[in-house]
Amino acid sequence: MTAESENTLRVAQQAFEHFEHGLATGEWSVFLDMLTEDFTFWFPMGKFHGLNVGKERAREFFQYVAESFRGGITLILERLTSNETTVVFEFRDEGLLLGQPYKNRIAVSFDVRGDKICGYREYFGSDGKSY
Amino acid sequence: MTAESENTLRVAQQAFEHFEHGLATGEWSVFLDMLTEDFTFWFPMGKFHGLNVGKERAREFFQYVAESFRGGITLILERLTSNETTVVFEFRDEGLLLGQPYKNRIAVSFDVRGDKICGYREYFGSDGKSY
Repeated sequence: MTAESENTLRVAQQAFEHFEHGLATGEWSVFLDMLTEDFTFWFPMGKFHGLNVGKERAREFFQYVAESFRGGITLILERLTSNETTVVFEFRDEGLLLGQPYKNRIAVSFDVRGDKICGYREYFGSDGKSY
Repeated sequence: MTAESENTLRVAQQAFEHFEHGLATGEWSVFLDMLTEDFTFWFPMGKFHGLNVGKERAREFFQYVAESFRGGITLILERLTSNETTVVFEFRDEGLLLGQPYKNRIAVSFDVRGDKICGYREYFGSDGKSY
């Protein structure tokens, strides 16, 4: 593994820990601190569907996530793959979405630049109701 | 990169070429030949939603894909990440689904055993109507 790949993996894993913390607690500030100012993310559906540009937009999104999942979401990481710039995490998650039982299988792909996350793509593996 | 990682990458890339050929042409036999007998796959929605077990079930699924996308689907590979056993391909695809314009962003994760694919998970990054 090259030094660049190792750095990418280390930074993405740190960000993923903060991401997991955000999902569990609704506190996203440590995760947001790891995003570049020009951070972009793609989301599969709803009002953040498609490409979203900028850290401020990310802040709005994670605020929306925290409000939607007030009791927190717990996740189980199943697989991790990586290359020199990108790390993909496959996991299951579970919680209450607007008070209703929620379960999903998710893949998130983090792009790393230096010691920050500059991009993120989320993919859904199920329907939010079952694995 | 270890010898095992290199083999995994090589096998998954070969399978992905056959997968792309299947999507484009509806001919899935070369892809199916690369699957283990105990192959399992997860799909996000519809009648193949959730876990599907066995190569015969995979044959039914890809027949269903071929019938749903009669004109073929073209894809653009955007990113590839891997580890010793798994390779994730992130791509966009486009075609006609039952005659209607179809576009999506997809992540597929292939698990490799020896020179075969033993598992596959598909994740949707959009709604089938736009990227």
